[in-house]
Amino acid sequence: MTHVFDEAIRVEARGDGVFYATTHQAYDNMVGPFGGITAATVVNALQQHPDVLGTPLALTINYAAPVANGTWDLHTQIVRTNRTNQHWTFTISQEGQTVSTGSAVFGIHRATWSDTEAVRPDVPPAENVAALDFPDFIAWASNYDKRFVVGGLDGGKSDDSTSTLWLRDLPERPLDYPALTSMTDAFFPRVFLRHGTYMPAGTITLTTYFHATPDELAAQGSDHVLGTARAARFGNGHFDQSGQLWGGDVLLASTHQLVYFKDPT
Amino acid sequence: MTHVFDEAIRVEARGDGVFYATTHQAYDNMVGPFGGITAATVVNALQQHPDVLGTPLALTINYAAPVANGTWDLHTQIVRTNRTNQHWTFTISQEGQTVSTGSAVFGIHRATWSDTEAVRPDVPPAENVAALDFPDFIAWASNYDKRFVVGGLDGGKSDDSTSTLWLRDLPERPLDYPALTSMTDAFFPRVFLRHGTYMPAGTITLTTYFHATPDELAAQGSDHVLGTARAARFGNGHFDQSGQLWGGDVLLASTHQLVYFKDPT
Repeated sequence: MTHVFDEAIRVEARGDGVFYATTHQAYDNMVGPFGGITAATVVNALQQHPDVLGTPLALTINYAAPVANGTWDLHTQIVRTNRTNQHWTFTISQEGQTVSTGSAVFGIHRATWSDTEAVRPDVPPAENVAALDFPDFIAWASNYDKRFVVGGLDGGKSDDSTSTLWLRDLPERPLDYPALTSMTDAFFPRVFLRHGTYMPAGTITLTTYFHATPDELAAQGSDHVLGTARAARFGNGHFDQSGQLWGGDVLLASTHQLVYFKDPT
Repeated sequence: MTHVFDEAIRVEARGDGVFYATTHQAYDNMVGPFGGITAATVVNALQQHPDVLGTPLALTINYAAPVANGTWDLHTQIVRTNRTNQHWTFTISQEGQTVSTGSAVFGIHRATWSDTEAVRPDVPPAENVAALDFPDFIAWASNYDKRFVVGGLDGGKSDDSTSTLWLRDLPERPLDYPALTSMTDAFFPRVFLRHGTYMPAGTITLTTYFHATPDELAAQGSDHVLGTARAARFGNGHFDQSGQLWGGDVLLASTHQLVYFKDPT
């Protein structure tokens, strides 16, 4: 049986770097699809391109307009292939209108000096943290087991926009680059947490750096990922938030986004 | 007399969103121009476009290949103009080859609830910190007054990749969006600091979120900006670093990049 995530990120390659995709109601957000599933679908498509080099290193996706439920076209272009990395640009369109743009870098992992300076939050194990449900109007969230250590939005408004949570596909699914991509957008807009309520907000642009190697993803399997995210500055209708996704002691990805918001009325 | 920065970011608009630019030897880096000046030139061009909406909110620039010294062409495209923001894509080419791609979001500042969660480093005033010179082969750096509180690379290798410094154009120049853009790339690759030496490294992709309003930039004038940056994870030939630029107590910009490196030989 196909996992609902694999149904949602499925693409049909039409040659010349063009892929067809279809939104999936299981990953609906308040308006249109969850941005994470759109980004994951792009990564899934790029990975299937016959000329792809290596695995994802960086992704930027710009949400220029809401994606309508239904089919969409992904036009991808290899800008340049270097010895160890490859630059891509892409465009998502619906009925001839561009709704998203973006760029990606894929590449080869080379053995080098290594160190992680980011510090994994000190948290209890996933099995000791209660799972939290989101309201039904956030359909995509029901495809994740979400166990908030802090910042679950069930505690009202907070002076600190940090959420730290255990996160896993529901049902369980081995982690891969598309699944990791989707999880980078699983942190709800930090302004909700500051105000203790849902309010009009949407990601404008999302950038993720993928640190995980294929071996690290294989080692992660379908265990819970530890996510943490916090905003830097809110004001003038926008804010930025940054997050990390950890698998055990391995920093799998760093992720950043700029978000539009309106004051609650 | 024109400031050398304004000479370096000068563009000639050729209509249809195409601009011509020329590298400036004052902003040379070890190989080709300093990435910050290339990004600043793009912002300068977009600001001059007759159809631009508002001021910069986000910029992603992908350095796909080294820029050769000489002229380059910038092709810009307005993807979509919404009520309060505008999405752009752009390509930089030299002799028909694409060397950089990117995207930008411009927009309007709306009065909303505001707060800054990021914490400005607690540092002595700029006048109490000694200026540091970089080696002559990093030409661009001589156009900045750089006063390192920590992480100046003059102390050898460090277990912590943090640099915190006072930064100002030299000669002084009132801060604007292009100048702020350039400063987001003024943090040298964090791997230098961990190894206490220069080594092969280069930015692959840079993303900046601009928080500063025009009024905040005007208030900043030509005072020193406080910059701080740190890496998250190094390994497998790449690392990511994140930085902040502060003007007084105002977070002017958040900036992130993925960097390629080779081990020192």
